[in-house]
Amino acid sequence: MQKVIILCVGKLKEEYWRLACAEYAKRMSRFADFSIVEIDEERLPDSPSPAQIKKTLEKEGERLLTKVPSGFEIVSMCIEGKQIDSESLAKKIQETAINGSGNIAFIIGGSWGLSDEVKNASSFRLSMSKMTFPHQMARVMLCEQIYRAFQISNGGKYHK
Amino acid sequence: MQKVIILCVGKLKEEYWRLACAEYAKRMSRFADFSIVEIDEERLPDSPSPAQIKKTLEKEGERLLTKVPSGFEIVSMCIEGKQIDSESLAKKIQETAINGSGNIAFIIGGSWGLSDEVKNASSFRLSMSKMTFPHQMARVMLCEQIYRAFQISNGGKYHK
Repeated sequence: MQKVIILCVGKLKEEYWRLACAEYAKRMSRFADFSIVEIDEERLPDSPSPAQIKKTLEKEGERLLTKVPSGFEIVSMCIEGKQIDSESLAKKIQETAINGSGNIAFIIGGSWGLSDEVKNASSFRLSMSKMTFPHQMARVMLCEQIYRAFQISNGGKYHK
Repeated sequence: MQKVIILCVGKLKEEYWRLACAEYAKRMSRFADFSIVEIDEERLPDSPSPAQIKKTLEKEGERLLTKVPSGFEIVSMCIEGKQIDSESLAKKIQETAINGSGNIAFIIGGSWGLSDEVKNASSFRLSMSKMTFPHQMARVMLCEQIYRAFQISNGGKYHK
């Protein structure tokens, strides 16, 4: 069974996002060994300086990367990354199993995104939209897309 | 106060989507007269024919269009529409107030999307992603983007 991890920053504050993620995690259990791993969010002042933001991203990035198990392919979520459709994401996930271990870590940053170190460690930078979504909602969106990708690969009914 | 309606198909099945939409509707009340209007979903067999889908879209489309109040600008949500970033959506909403009534109806179709009649009646076709999201989740995503747009226009803190 493929192993898929979503690595992310901070706990979900809203009960509805927690419930939505839990539902997708439950549905994913048919297809893969799926888990969501949260690291603690670094504290920042209300109006942080660019240097403070950079330092925060570096610290969070280091801690995120230590959570990536050995041999996992890294996909980093960035608004400036490449957009692909759901079928292409399904193919991409299948290909990791053909070319490698098939184990993937998707990394979502906090409010300020991801450090260059994380982006450079990833084999693919994925964008879901030109629009900015809150990182907590992006987690739910990514859960849905990963579930949809496995559903497509397994020939399941395609929900829209 | 600008009036903003989301017109959509069917009731939200999942409690977590209902809670999320309710939260954004509450936050929107500071900025606009915001409401979500649902029409009933047409029944379709499990594996509908293209003709059956077309007929369903036409019926739903007719009922959606009758719900658009007079003088409202229509934005239809289509995966093949144009993607714009959150700042551009904010500008677009501001412009409707400069060039017209400022009242907007965003229309989201059901599982099979929207009829050509609805798309042709709209002044803008908006896409949030290349990826396919369930239409119920798209409703939550759109609520968030509309709220974010008003927050941007009102100089509020920009949550990511």
